[in-house]
Order: sequence, then structure tokens, then C-alpha cells
Amino acid sequence: MSRIVLFESYGAPDVLQFREVEVGAPGPREVRIQVRAIGLNRAESMWRKGNYVEEVRLPARLGYEVAGIVDAVGTEVTHVRPGDAVTTIPSFSQNDYGLYGEVVLAPAHAVVAIPAGLSFEEATAIWNPYITPYGAFAERHPLTASDVVLVSSASSSVGLGAIEMINMLGATPIALTRTSAKRDALLAAGAKHVIATEEQDLVAEVKRLTDGKGATFAFEAVGGSQFPTLLAALAHGATVFVYGALSDDVTPLPLLDIIPNEPVIRGYNLFGTTTDPERQARAVAFISEGLASGKLKPRIAQTFAFDDIVEAHRTLEKNEHIGRIVVTV
Amino acid sequence: MSRIVLFESYGAPDVLQFREVEVGAPGPREVRIQVRAIGLNRAESMWRKGNYVEEVRLPARLGYEVAGIVDAVGTEVTHVRPGDAVTTIPSFSQNDYGLYGEVVLAPAHAVVAIPAGLSFEEATAIWNPYITPYGAFAERHPLTASDVVLVSSASSSVGLGAIEMINMLGATPIALTRTSAKRDALLAAGAKHVIATEEQDLVAEVKRLTDGKGATFAFEAVGGSQFPTLLAALAHGATVFVYGALSDDVTPLPLLDIIPNEPVIRGYNLFGTTTDPERQARAVAFISEGLASGKLKPRIAQTFAFDDIVEAHRTLEKNEHIGRIVVTV
Repeated sequence: MSRIVLFESYGAPDVLQFREVEVGAPGPREVRIQVRAIGLNRAESMWRKGNYVEEVRLPARLGYEVAGIVDAVGTEVTHVRPGDAVTTIPSFSQNDYGLYGEVVLAPAHAVVAIPAGLSFEEATAIWNPYITPYGAFAERHPLTASDVVLVSSASSSVGLGAIEMINMLGATPIALTRTSAKRDALLAAGAKHVIATEEQDLVAEVKRLTDGKGATFAFEAVGGSQFPTLLAALAHGATVFVYGALSDDVTPLPLLDIIPNEPVIRGYNLFGTTTDPERQARAVAFISEGLASGKLKPRIAQTFAFDDIVEAHRTLEKNEHIGRIVVTV
Repeated sequence: MSRIVLFESYGAPDVLQFREVEVGAPGPREVRIQVRAIGLNRAESMWRKGNYVEEVRLPARLGYEVAGIVDAVGTEVTHVRPGDAVTTIPSFSQNDYGLYGEVVLAPAHAVVAIPAGLSFEEATAIWNPYITPYGAFAERHPLTASDVVLVSSASSSVGLGAIEMINMLGATPIALTRTSAKRDALLAAGAKHVIATEEQDLVAEVKRLTDGKGATFAFEAVGGSQFPTLLAALAHGATVFVYGALSDDVTPLPLLDIIPNEPVIRGYNLFGTTTDPERQARAVAFISEGLASGKLKPRIAQTFAFDDIVEAHRTLEKNEHIGRIVVTV
């Protein structure tokens, strides 16, 4: 038997319930994992609210990124075996697999060995945080040394991952955060500059920091009423990757601004990279190299016990942490 | 002396006034033109309302596209000479030059010979209508035979120009128009299919016409509350060129839709093409070839006398016409 987490209706963190289930043998292309740690993503909190990029089938399980020990593999699985320490890469629908649990089944294509030297906790804080910016800035639109990238929601695990990835790729990350409370931590995490968007004039600051040119990229997870301000801080022809939607407000697209300034606004997610075996393998190799060199350093904000999953989700949504919230099992 | 048109405050068409002015000798890089015909653009009506991509300095002149006879050239101008029949390419700010007038000065880089065989009226209906889609679909994102392009505001002169340009480039144009009143005219103009957006389900129709795939491009001049519906009719990873903003409503950017579907939404205008001499020359050559072959056929909706400029603007804004509204001088 395994305790797993599910919800039967959308809502606040306390809709999450535990359930004892029997976890069967893995299918031909599945891996059964004894979970040791779960990394929480904002995607899971949006999923829990029924406010996600994909429709949620209730009752629903949840969870993309866990680390643990393989205890069984399907007949067609050859790349990992029982006893291996593994992690999971977001590359599936939570309608098909939800990994919050003591023992879970995962699709084999999502399961990879833990990169050398990482703890279980750290191994839950690498794929979404690093593949998301990698897919944007290494694969789709490679950065050059002159690029300046605005990173919104900079203290989230993906925001921090983006800051490191942008540095690794040789460009300049500017962290956007609401108040100056996290300024020092973001500078320590590699941000070249930090702009507190509720305290400073975003456009004026970016122009000041870029000799009047504006940023050449934005990595945007928020949206809402401030989106036009983000666009106004960009250089002519800049590219915005929109990968998250943390604001509940309408995001206005200011046509009269974008026609002259010609930004390229790209809806974006990491699945194009993670669901293609060759691209996933290149991403894993690149990120493993970054981890080995110390250029990428996964950051754990806080650790919760599995029993406290509701509290962990509450903390996730308070946005006061810096880095990844991890649940140990 | 020359009668010219200007406005001293923003507003309805009747803010347009005539004024008698002395037109001086052209500067070194200017051309003085005896105007015979003026082609009206929606850009000029947005400009008149003070609702344009650029701030309007009052009192303001207006006008991008005219055709006429050169009567004087500046000392550095060698590519045209007095007596030449010429047209003007939108490649300047209306704060610097406004071409509604009997005799006007234009920047030399905007002045080109009328392509062979065109009347003055037709010659006012070619550059914005054809260079706008050319810059998008020949230069920036070349179309292939499998591409399907949704053309909004299809009965506008740029919409019609886009339909012809898309055909010339070998792809498939689908015209979007509000009601079925213009259906037959749009089919005659080269639209492969016509969708009346107030009468038909845009998404279902596009999916039906594309074997469920969705369109690969949209050429969008409207915006407003229907923008998310336009996006929903696109294939994964499709590109939208936003070159106009006819709706006065807020244009919502539906983040939870664009993250999974990954459209590329590009603010766009023709000035990148028209203000670069080499690119302008290539565009003019390409379009001249299209005109000579009959693949591009400028369409005059209605002709007004110069005295009736206010009425011409009113007609422009009623959106009942198909093609270009021209004022003869």
C-alpha cells in the first residue's frame, strides 16, 4: 500500500487529501518509484485550483517532479533498474500520472538517473527550473553575450533557474521581484541587477541599466495588468517567453505599443523539449554539465514532511520563499 | 499656393480642415509633388483621432500614400526628376510629412516611379497594401505551400493586398469578415475561403477547413475581445502578425491558452522594410513584378473629390467598402 495525494474538487490547499492505494506492477513502459522527495511547482497549485493550461479530470492526482529509488520497471524499460536513484522530468499530463505519493508509477520517458552529487531533495529542483529556461534560451532563441533578460517571478525555482541558466549562457539576467525584501538573495543567486517592481519604475530602471536600449528578452511567468509595463521595458524587436500565468487578472496586449516596437511574444512551455527523446537527452546532458561545474546550484527554500503537504502548498502560494519547496517522504 | 489638409484637435472626420499654404523649394533630400490622387489608410484615421502608434503633434498634417507628378527635386535627389509620375511609400512619420495636399513635399526615400501601367488612383493603392504582407510573409516568415493564413479585416486595402500576396507566395488565404455581405467579393478577390465571424464559429470553421490542424499564420489588424478566438483557431506554434488595432476594446492575451499552444505573436509594421533602402528596393521590385504579372491587382473601392475629404474619411470608417478609398486632386 502507498499513501498518495489527490483532490476531489478544486480549491485552496486543504482540498488535498491522502488516500491509501494499492500501486500495481508497472506497465511495459512505466517505472515504479519509492519516492523520497517531492519538489513543488506552481503548476501544481494552478492545477489544484482547476486553473491550468490543461483541463483537470476529477478526482485528480498531482505532481511532476520527485526523486527516489526505483523498485520495479516495466518489461520494455532498459535505461534504469531497481535500486537506481532517479528523478522525474515533467513530460506528461497530470491527468495520466500524479507523483505526490510514497510509491508511484511514472512513465519511463520521464525517469532519469539523479545527476552526480545531488541529494534526493536537490534532485527535485532541477528539471522544471532548468529545462524551462534552457528550452527558451539555449534551444529556441540562443542568447548572446549582449543579451539582457528580464526574469519575472525571479525568486521562484524557475526564476532562479533562469538566472543561473542565463549566466551559464553568457548573457545578463535582471531579476524582477515585487519588493526589495529579496534583493540581496537574488543578487547572491546571480542576478546582475534586481528591480523591485512595486517600489521602482521598471521601465526607467531597465532603460538606465541598458544605456537606454531596453532588454532584449523577457522570461515572463506573471502576466496581468503589469504586462504592458514589462513590454515597455524591452528593446525594439525583443522576445518575450510567456511560460506562466501567476496573476489572476486579465493580461492586456497593448496593440498600439507592440505595432511600433515589434516585440515577439511567444507562448511557451517545456514539453516540446521534454517529450522529444533527443531533445530531452541534450537538455539533461547540458544541465548535468552545469550542475557538475557548479554553474547551476539547485536551491531548496524549505522542506516539509509528507504529512504537511497542505501546509507546503500554502507556503508555496505565499510567495515569501526563495527557491524550491520540497516535501520529504 | 497649395491647399493642404490638417487638424488642430483630435476627433471625428470633420476635424479635418483645408488651409492654403506656400510650399517652399524642396530640401536637399526632398521631392515636391503635384498630387493627383491620395490613397486613404486606416492609419490616418487613427492618427486623426490621436489614437495611433505614435504621438501626434498638433496642429497635424496627415497622409502617407499619394501619386502625382514631380515638379521639383532637392539637390541630392537623382532617382526621380521633374515631370516623373511617382508614388510615395509609407516610410516616414506624419509628424514630419503629411501628404494630403495639392502640392506637397515628401522625403526623397519615400518617392518612387509609378509601376508600369497603373493609373494615379491605382498607384495610391499598392505600397501599404502590398508591402505590409510582403514584409511579413516574404521577408520575415516566408510562407510555404502548406501554410494557411487567416486574414482579418479582409476587405480593407491591406487585407485584400494580403490575400493576393499570400496567393502569389503559394499559400492559402482565409478571409475573415464580420458578415457574409462581402463573401462573394472576397472569394472573387482571391480568398480561398471566407468566414463571417459574426455568423459562423471561427474556430470550428478553421478547424474544418484545415483537417483539424488550425491555421499556421494570422495577419491581424483588429484585436479586441475576439483576439483569443483568433488564437484558438491556430495550429500549435503558429505565428500572428499584429499590424493594426481597429478595435477600441482591450485585447486580452489568454495566457493559459498560449502557454500550451505556443503561438508566436509579433507586433509588426512595414517601416522596417520601407526605411531600409535595400529592403525597400527588393519590395518594390517584387511588387512591381506581381503587378506586371497580374497577380497583384490594386482595387479602388470608391473615389472622392479633394473637397470631400471629410466624407471620404467617414466612408473609410464605415467599413462598408471593399478596397481602397481614393481622393482625386
